[in-house]
Amino acid sequence: MASDPTRFILIQPSHPGNVGAAARAMKVMGFADLVLVAPRWPNVQGRKEAIERASGALDILKNARVVETFAEALDGVTWACATAMTPRDFGPPTQAPREHFVTLAGSGHRVAFVFGTERFGMSNDDVYRCHACLSIPTDPDYGSLNLAQALQVIAYEWRQALGGFPVQPRTAEAARADAQAVQGVLDHWQQALVRIGFLDPAAPRKLMPRLNQLLNRAQLAPEEVHILRGIARAVEAAAGAVKGLGPGPGSQP
Amino acid sequence: MASDPTRFILIQPSHPGNVGAAARAMKVMGFADLVLVAPRWPNVQGRKEAIERASGALDILKNARVVETFAEALDGVTWACATAMTPRDFGPPTQAPREHFVTLAGSGHRVAFVFGTERFGMSNDDVYRCHACLSIPTDPDYGSLNLAQALQVIAYEWRQALGGFPVQPRTAEAARADAQAVQGVLDHWQQALVRIGFLDPAAPRKLMPRLNQLLNRAQLAPEEVHILRGIARAVEAAAGAVKGLGPGPGSQP
Repeated sequence: MASDPTRFILIQPSHPGNVGAAARAMKVMGFADLVLVAPRWPNVQGRKEAIERASGALDILKNARVVETFAEALDGVTWACATAMTPRDFGPPTQAPREHFVTLAGSGHRVAFVFGTERFGMSNDDVYRCHACLSIPTDPDYGSLNLAQALQVIAYEWRQALGGFPVQPRTAEAARADAQAVQGVLDHWQQALVRIGFLDPAAPRKLMPRLNQLLNRAQLAPEEVHILRGIARAVEAAAGAVKGLGPGPGSQP
Repeated sequence: MASDPTRFILIQPSHPGNVGAAARAMKVMGFADLVLVAPRWPNVQGRKEAIERASGALDILKNARVVETFAEALDGVTWACATAMTPRDFGPPTQAPREHFVTLAGSGHRVAFVFGTERFGMSNDDVYRCHACLSIPTDPDYGSLNLAQALQVIAYEWRQALGGFPVQPRTAEAARADAQAVQGVLDHWQQALVRIGFLDPAAPRKLMPRLNQLLNRAQLAPEEVHILRGIARAVEAAAGAVKGLGPGPGSQP
């Protein structure tokens, strides 16, 4: 963990589930250095709820360092960010994470993010040891984030500030049909719509321009060009079958 | 809830704790419209883990609407954002939330964020009903966010994109001493350091400029100016007491 530039410190966490969830929240954002200061359950890393909620981040949970005091947790750290809900008489300046991280990300500091107990947050003495105070902007009427969720937001913002991970496309990148292909669809549909009597060539109104706009917004893929032309062809064929006219002059095999 | 512009939809959530945590994650970001599609536990809103993890967001949990199908959950929605981990053969384009929200925030759409089951995510058919696919940028080696934590990140990013809540200062805004006051501190310390023999006026080296730079970086508050001058005064007094010289010529009462 020595090369990990970022540490997460939980002071006296009470709920093993939160410790496990914190490990998972760190790991999805690519962080690994977790320090627990005097957890309520000394064997927290082995407790069922911690293990369950750590899910695939068991390594982070098991490798977490347990120390007695906040001072010990700060070894090697040059910039400690407190997270604090309740106002203090004085202390480091408060900033939103995104705002603070703009300058912190390029600073070269060895950074720690510090989270207090679930019920009472950080003590004043612990806040005074820190270089900055982060406040996640929440609804003024209800700002109580769960510990692991607050950590998730901080870890996410910090990873974004450090350059982020690439988005992994979950859906194939769609090719787009060019305007000429779309015009082919429109011509084909115009012919089919005339054939079934929906479009009167003598009084076309704005039907085709409207369909043109619709297809432009839809950003057709090449496969969809084929689908729409196939439908137009089937419409013409059906009209021919019903009316006994056979395929129209513009229909394609 | 009718005026709420944003809906969160959970499809077949399995764990009541996640439903409660989702309600809390929404509420801290000022959202209230939660729809549950065919939850595993029909009475999920009354279950112990849901209530515990909802914490102060019990109203969101209790007012959540339970429906049978995803189609029902989409009433009134004009832009549905899927969240998906596993790749699909096709579907709406994938974007990172921050990137997608730049344009979505000003669009006037009635937006829904859709989350699949804890184990399998969203079905293909449900993804196909959506207008966009969001992917939170995570570590390529481990991208498995807990349901409520994924929702927390999306809710946070969406609130930021909508303009955000103001940061509430947790520490008092500190006044800063002006350069003249800092010079007064330096002069006072110079005198005290000469008196105790730490600074030789004949060979001062760079001691005072270094202390000047230190104090400039420290951005002294007015109270701290008083503290540092008080210390200098006490140093002079102690030096006088020890050496029997009495207070030095520059000491102040």
